[in-house]
Amino acid sequence: MPEMKTIEFTKEMQEYAEGLRRRGQKLSFVPTMGYFHEGHLELMREAKKLADCLIVSIYVNPTQFGPKEDLSKYPRDFARDAEMAKTVGVDIIFYPDSKEIYPEGYQTYVTVEEVTKNLCGLSRPGHFRGVTTICAKLFHIVKPHVAVFGKKDYQQYVTIKRMVDDLNMDLEIIGLPTIREADGLAMSSRNVYLKDNERQSALTLIASLKRAQKLYDEGERKASVIIGEAEKIIKAAPYTEIDYIKICDTQTLQDIDKIEGQAIIALAVKVAQTRLIDNHVFGDVI
Amino acid sequence: MPEMKTIEFTKEMQEYAEGLRRRGQKLSFVPTMGYFHEGHLELMREAKKLADCLIVSIYVNPTQFGPKEDLSKYPRDFARDAEMAKTVGVDIIFYPDSKEIYPEGYQTYVTVEEVTKNLCGLSRPGHFRGVTTICAKLFHIVKPHVAVFGKKDYQQYVTIKRMVDDLNMDLEIIGLPTIREADGLAMSSRNVYLKDNERQSALTLIASLKRAQKLYDEGERKASVIIGEAEKIIKAAPYTEIDYIKICDTQTLQDIDKIEGQAIIALAVKVAQTRLIDNHVFGDVI
Repeated sequence: MPEMKTIEFTKEMQEYAEGLRRRGQKLSFVPTMGYFHEGHLELMREAKKLADCLIVSIYVNPTQFGPKEDLSKYPRDFARDAEMAKTVGVDIIFYPDSKEIYPEGYQTYVTVEEVTKNLCGLSRPGHFRGVTTICAKLFHIVKPHVAVFGKKDYQQYVTIKRMVDDLNMDLEIIGLPTIREADGLAMSSRNVYLKDNERQSALTLIASLKRAQKLYDEGERKASVIIGEAEKIIKAAPYTEIDYIKICDTQTLQDIDKIEGQAIIALAVKVAQTRLIDNHVFGDVI
Repeated sequence: MPEMKTIEFTKEMQEYAEGLRRRGQKLSFVPTMGYFHEGHLELMREAKKLADCLIVSIYVNPTQFGPKEDLSKYPRDFARDAEMAKTVGVDIIFYPDSKEIYPEGYQTYVTVEEVTKNLCGLSRPGHFRGVTTICAKLFHIVKPHVAVFGKKDYQQYVTIKRMVDDLNMDLEIIGLPTIREADGLAMSSRNVYLKDNERQSALTLIASLKRAQKLYDEGERKASVIIGEAEKIIKAAPYTEIDYIKICDTQTLQDIDKIEGQAIIALAVKVAQTRLIDNHVFGDVI
């Protein structure tokens, strides 16, 4: 592979990808909204191992933001991102603008119905339709054999996997564990919004997940009891406002009352102005 | 190419198509619901000219039928279809069953919003969502470079083209003119439902389109006048019940009052129990 290449146009990306595929190369893909942190880089490192050519897209997708959400202030820094991408061996950055992605007259959407109903689907109507639509588009443009997602956005990971299976897209979706700061805060581009004292409060997210796992270890299986304890920890901190704390089946993402099979505790909390999410699958290391 | 091959499984079809693509072969595709007539064969002959390998799918897609429509009685005859396909040089028939296409837990749909609202979209809610979803799936399974559709289903053709553009699917959609019986009736698998006297009434569809073109030739541009005249012809015949007769822009498929740019007259008429559609773009040969 020559040095890292940036492609801005759909047709050029498709032709380039098609050429690589014809030559028998395996392509891996990490779709992102940029403003990279260690979590993104870890996805890229893993994706790099899986293929001959690693493609990363950077596109802040407007259709997955609600009208009152942080689209316009979402952090962006292409030059910084490109430098970071180079260090982990990214081969191609696909960096389109919105005219290229949603031209005038655009009117097609992909919807995954069931697994998007609960959790963030409740508080962010239209969000997952935006996510699945942009991912379908990017998969058609980048033509990867494998795409890698972080499991911090667990519902997104399940939704994309479902879309790929249902629509017979011929690629593999891989989910990787959440990468955390030294103090346990899940990495997110939105963490830059947090002031020092807010960041302290944000640590109650991981604390509540740890508490949930501890209760589980002690034999507790009632969702309401575990959720109640997690809630207490978060509510005790200033600036926090819980959007949801739920325990769900890891496949269907439907609420469960009693943990029997594989279950996940997922939460969304607003810390001052910043909405953070995190989750933990019971039994996993935390 | 060896003799015609039938493939029933998604994974096998994908691997076969991927192998052909890697060897530099060009693939063309005609998706059908089977029960072939000359219109289908004409699509296949044209598609055959465009590629090294011609793939035809036969699948009566349940999600594009409404609850009161003719899914269960839709005509089927695979052996006959396979014989007919051979005569026009089809290389592969993809012939899946519904367990393969919509497995348990299926929940993903593709929706094209604007161009599906009018015409058949008004009387067949959910129909185009079924069409776009199955086509997206089939395109991912068959991996064609080009797919060929008949323009008898003009709204379907426009909708699929829109989906492919919007979702950046890397294939070309080609629409071919409607093939007609000697007496002008547009070919359709549903024509077998018509009894002799009903078939006579069905000829008022083409008669009304011809009348519309004649009025246009004489300088008439008011949609209401042309529609009124077309309506008279159809209403004069027994067994007919008009679902719609509309004049629309050929791109947006929105109703127009006065013909200025490219316009289409499209109609749907129930003749006894059989719903027939037909259309004509003003200025085209009829």
